[in-house]
Amino acid sequence: MDTDDLQECIHHRFTQVKLLETALTHSTYAYEHGEEKDNERLEFLGDAVLELSISEEAFARFPNLPEGQLTRIRSRLVREASLAAMARELGLHEHIRLGRGEDMHGGRERDSILSDAMEAVFGAIFLDAGYETARHAILRICEKHWPDEVMEAKAKDYKSRLQEVTQDRNKSLPVYVLSDTHGPDHAKLFDVEVTLPTGELFHGRGTSVKRAEQTAARAALEHLGEE
Amino acid sequence: MDTDDLQECIHHRFTQVKLLETALTHSTYAYEHGEEKDNERLEFLGDAVLELSISEEAFARFPNLPEGQLTRIRSRLVREASLAAMARELGLHEHIRLGRGEDMHGGRERDSILSDAMEAVFGAIFLDAGYETARHAILRICEKHWPDEVMEAKAKDYKSRLQEVTQDRNKSLPVYVLSDTHGPDHAKLFDVEVTLPTGELFHGRGTSVKRAEQTAARAALEHLGEE
Repeated sequence: MDTDDLQECIHHRFTQVKLLETALTHSTYAYEHGEEKDNERLEFLGDAVLELSISEEAFARFPNLPEGQLTRIRSRLVREASLAAMARELGLHEHIRLGRGEDMHGGRERDSILSDAMEAVFGAIFLDAGYETARHAILRICEKHWPDEVMEAKAKDYKSRLQEVTQDRNKSLPVYVLSDTHGPDHAKLFDVEVTLPTGELFHGRGTSVKRAEQTAARAALEHLGEE
Repeated sequence: MDTDDLQECIHHRFTQVKLLETALTHSTYAYEHGEEKDNERLEFLGDAVLELSISEEAFARFPNLPEGQLTRIRSRLVREASLAAMARELGLHEHIRLGRGEDMHGGRERDSILSDAMEAVFGAIFLDAGYETARHAILRICEKHWPDEVMEAKAKDYKSRLQEVTQDRNKSLPVYVLSDTHGPDHAKLFDVEVTLPTGELFHGRGTSVKRAEQTAARAALEHLGEE
């Protein structure tokens, strides 16, 4: 099986080409040809390699996003439809070894088969060359599937985002008030209240007024379903 | 906060101790003390580091297990109760920084809080020193939580396992018959049928009789719910 062009697209030249071949072998083909190995175990591994690569990158790209949003961004990238699209971009469908019946019934175009093979290829790169190499290849392949600017904008600070939201919805801005302080001078805590144009009130606490405002703005955004 | 003994138990000496402190900071504590960072983002990252470490190890430890069983083994290790148990063994509960209310209501003993902190610690080691270091620490901490010998026995070859199962259930052995061969001599395929004491029949195909028997035995085990 000739995988030279594929290896070029993947940006990894395999030392153990057999790994790539196994990654491209669907269970129906293995069964028909009496081969012991199909791509299911590599898919198991590749799924976890993909998950960590994307998590590490999302963590670094969006230093201000809370865990819930990081999870949402990650699940967008690792879902079946996204992986199948990446597989098609690499021409993986032309290389997958499928059983005859499966092939005749359009298996080569099926998202689940393409997505499984894509994950198996990630697993194969990981076994062939380790985490760092696999991560680099994965990030290149995923690059254009990251959420667009709208989503990145969400990484902006909470206060600016709340301002945009109330401008949009109410043509008016939120109002921040320092409502209380606690503790001795060297360890003071500040309580801030933010009031939205709708009259709704949210609290925040922080080691500075600015931080307390951010916390209050985040609480408001969460309530508005914008967090 | 003194984390010397904890770092010893974790088998990692942090360069950036602040990361470990953040990993041990529950959101209720961060809120009460106006700290910007809690352990939720590190938990997001640690979850993925744990997943890959366990996947890589399971893949290597059980070279004959199909994907479904690897997934089952992994989920046993990464589930909340297992992670909470590991956290308790390390004395993590003594170090977690909890909000007052949460602490008074027994939060320090809650599996979900312990398990989240455990994952956050894995994320912190990963950020501090990279994948390989984190993997080593994780495998040490998880070591005694791997499934016992019964589960490892499942990794044995399918034919032996089927034999044990039918002995157990029916006090009798399965019977294998070569039912057909295909293809030219240099690429011959063998079809084998295995009949269970119950009369049930399963097929397998392989590039040797032995491999075809394994495939047939695996099909039988799957049907019997033993796979």
